[in-house]
Amino acid sequence: MKNRNCIIRLSRYKTALYRLKALGFVKVFSDNLAEAIGVMPSQVRKDFSLFGISGKKRGGYHIDALIERLNEILGKDKVHTVIIVGCGHIGSALMKYRKFEDGGIKIAAGFDIDPAKHAQDADIPVFPIDRVKPFIKEHNVELAIIAVPDIAAQQVADMLISAGIKGILNFAPIRLRCPEGSIAHNINLELELENLIYFVNVLKKKRVNPDETENA
Amino acid sequence: MKNRNCIIRLSRYKTALYRLKALGFVKVFSDNLAEAIGVMPSQVRKDFSLFGISGKKRGGYHIDALIERLNEILGKDKVHTVIIVGCGHIGSALMKYRKFEDGGIKIAAGFDIDPAKHAQDADIPVFPIDRVKPFIKEHNVELAIIAVPDIAAQQVADMLISAGIKGILNFAPIRLRCPEGSIAHNINLELELENLIYFVNVLKKKRVNPDETENA
Repeated sequence: MKNRNCIIRLSRYKTALYRLKALGFVKVFSDNLAEAIGVMPSQVRKDFSLFGISGKKRGGYHIDALIERLNEILGKDKVHTVIIVGCGHIGSALMKYRKFEDGGIKIAAGFDIDPAKHAQDADIPVFPIDRVKPFIKEHNVELAIIAVPDIAAQQVADMLISAGIKGILNFAPIRLRCPEGSIAHNINLELELENLIYFVNVLKKKRVNPDETENA
Repeated sequence: MKNRNCIIRLSRYKTALYRLKALGFVKVFSDNLAEAIGVMPSQVRKDFSLFGISGKKRGGYHIDALIERLNEILGKDKVHTVIIVGCGHIGSALMKYRKFEDGGIKIAAGFDIDPAKHAQDADIPVFPIDRVKPFIKEHNVELAIIAVPDIAAQQVADMLISAGIKGILNFAPIRLRCPEGSIAHNINLELELENLIYFVNVLKKKRVNPDETENA
């Protein structure tokens, strides 16, 4: 099944491939990729076969061809424009996060309700929130990061979706509800720490099966 | 099985319970909790029964008692001290993230290699990195957030674990390897966006089963 975890593994294979390539490798075997991301080799072959990727039994996969195919599947063969709504601590940090740019993700602008945060001439400008709808339409933006307080998040999401946003990465600690045709993924930092605390407590009490505590 | 997703659901139930409590509710049914976090009622009962939590068929669960029990399970019945290593954009934003404090998580200090980031007299002080080992030992810290560049992350993790850290929340975009007795959860922001892009592309191509694209 092409579910979230499978797609996350594809991203991880891709990262591993770039590292192998940087080390001068030309070919790779499913065992190498499996070891690099911590799964069984059969999982790698299963994931690849879902997308019609096949290697040669003895020759393995060509790294360049595999990277190209994974980028195509993941939609990384073109640059994606993203806006950030809410330029507090987390939002501002994400605006400056260099790894996004390296990964073909362009943060086009930030939007905030607070005039003190506006910076219309900055490299990545920050505009008043009432500019967000025309901006989305004018630049055909489909992706947004929400980093506003939880109480405002659903309202902001509704507004963004009505203007054309299709995918939201949400840092507000609430679970957004999206109409059909749009999607939100949630990153809840407090919940992540809470989860870690639970598994540290389990570790302290007894040895656990590490598979149970692995991050997806 | 008490796996990561199950524990994440417990955190979500707890958040929903606090909201219901704030609205004046005293009792809650598995159906309410199921709706609040977007799962089936049978899932709620299954999760609770794993931890020996039972409600009355007609009476439901007492919200206060349930919150207390969930906090106990999640180790949130006491304050947890966390340090942050790497005080760049992401690390600094996390130091100021208010939701941690609300959730019983105390960020005790930051550590950075760059003298320009040191601030030993700040509310949450930032110390040179060579102070981190004695600090961990002196304050019995078990939890750390890593927000250093990927190339330094594994080395930092090894050092922290050798000093007594048992749980790491890692924002560096590499998969940390931890020895037995310690654990790392990874938050890879670029990968999260990449994942969202994939599912937005799927949405644009066809209707998908929303269950397949749900965040865990």
